[in-house]
Amino acid sequence: MAKADTSLAGKILVLKMSKFDFSAVEFVAGTVWLAGAGPGDPGLLTIHAADAMRQADVIVHDALVSDAVLALAGKNTVLESVGKRGGRPSPGQAEICRKLIDLAKQGKKVLRLKGGDPFVFGRGAEEALALVEAGIEFRVMPGITAGIGGLAYAGIPVTHGAMNQSVTFVSGHDPTGGVPDGVDWQALAKGSQVLVLYMAVRHMPAIAQVLIDAGRAASEPVAFVRNATMENQQVHETRLGNVRADVSAGLVASPSIVVIGAVVDLRHEIDWWGKV
Amino acid sequence: MAKADTSLAGKILVLKMSKFDFSAVEFVAGTVWLAGAGPGDPGLLTIHAADAMRQADVIVHDALVSDAVLALAGKNTVLESVGKRGGRPSPGQAEICRKLIDLAKQGKKVLRLKGGDPFVFGRGAEEALALVEAGIEFRVMPGITAGIGGLAYAGIPVTHGAMNQSVTFVSGHDPTGGVPDGVDWQALAKGSQVLVLYMAVRHMPAIAQVLIDAGRAASEPVAFVRNATMENQQVHETRLGNVRADVSAGLVASPSIVVIGAVVDLRHEIDWWGKV
Repeated sequence: MAKADTSLAGKILVLKMSKFDFSAVEFVAGTVWLAGAGPGDPGLLTIHAADAMRQADVIVHDALVSDAVLALAGKNTVLESVGKRGGRPSPGQAEICRKLIDLAKQGKKVLRLKGGDPFVFGRGAEEALALVEAGIEFRVMPGITAGIGGLAYAGIPVTHGAMNQSVTFVSGHDPTGGVPDGVDWQALAKGSQVLVLYMAVRHMPAIAQVLIDAGRAASEPVAFVRNATMENQQVHETRLGNVRADVSAGLVASPSIVVIGAVVDLRHEIDWWGKV
Repeated sequence: MAKADTSLAGKILVLKMSKFDFSAVEFVAGTVWLAGAGPGDPGLLTIHAADAMRQADVIVHDALVSDAVLALAGKNTVLESVGKRGGRPSPGQAEICRKLIDLAKQGKKVLRLKGGDPFVFGRGAEEALALVEAGIEFRVMPGITAGIGGLAYAGIPVTHGAMNQSVTFVSGHDPTGGVPDGVDWQALAKGSQVLVLYMAVRHMPAIAQVLIDAGRAASEPVAFVRNATMENQQVHETRLGNVRADVSAGLVASPSIVVIGAVVDLRHEIDWWGKV
């Protein structure tokens, strides 16, 4: 059952246990692994993802994958950015899917590495479906999403037994860049004690107003967390009623994860990361 | 900046980058690390958590932490279960907090290891506050939560751009064991396109009825995922209107993660884990 492994990854963990043993997961040529890189701290990579970075021929990554994570790629692994930052035109989703399929068809071991988790507003489902359609085999490697793990580094737990029994993750923009019209903000305002918003900075003034109109208190605590889990992490605490002014004044910047709810105040006690 | 590390964990990753480098995180005696173990597959441990398991003097763990994960503990690390399974009386939350504090005061390196993520319905916030109160230093190590990563192994992405812009995580029981009365199920039914329920099997007949009464279709797809990410993972697919009958017939068992929404049907294409 247990046997020594001489691979790089094997040195840390020598157990081999068939299906779910990471060191037993061989990256088969011509397949794609859809993996999450977490919020930025490379220590938040899963063992699966770290191992995949060593084995991959090519890593197709987003701009949100941190340099500290990318530094862990294998020596012969090619890094290919399909990110949307820096002013350069970025490839669209269809083009990214084609690239993954083409690389796999060339017999490469293709790691599609996304910031956070691939299935949390990450288009991972769309890419998986494209691979299915093209007959390319794939695995999925979940990652730590910023809306949970990033907030933990800001000292904000997304749940506390006495404060909330629900937490909602919402995308702050739809595929066309507007406020998502598929979201019933009125109902969310009533139903969810804690709201965590992704890609929402631009629309936060409008969203804050809708939530207040739906009955959330203007005094409700809000935090914007930028560069979560990184050395340059920045946390801006405010109140729902001040969000518009803070965004106008440039006190927050994109991308940030935004959290609304009573748990934000726990930061004043739990902010361990500010102390290490 | 970069230097070789001779520790076990260091062999896999030799970069040293001050604050956020996992191999530079020394487990200081008399401190507590609150870590998530993920849903079960040891490959879903973060590098931080795997490293912590090697360094810890004692690991205080829940029943939900898998044996495959516990097998990765250091040779001299003591495993202490505070789980709630097996018919034995289990320590209450106050007793667990006291234990963590006592062990830290004895100068131990104490790893508090929870299934999933410590801040997602895991009482991690309560334990962190108890440590603050007692003046014990701690770190938080987020983990992969079953409601995201476990579902990914069932081929169910919690989001798809064309299907949902929100997903809500709900606890299916309150601290006293009842259906949480702090949850506005009517509003959640309207506001959240996808619902993921933790610890909910027992109350699912009642919850399904409330959701249908609030306007969710009885034909809406539902999945129960048990032993997520493990070799013995079981997925039961049903419809909201059949949940009561399925629970009565014993077709599902606790603990399972429950997901309600259109994304469940994507499993028919994305179920990669059933194919490896």
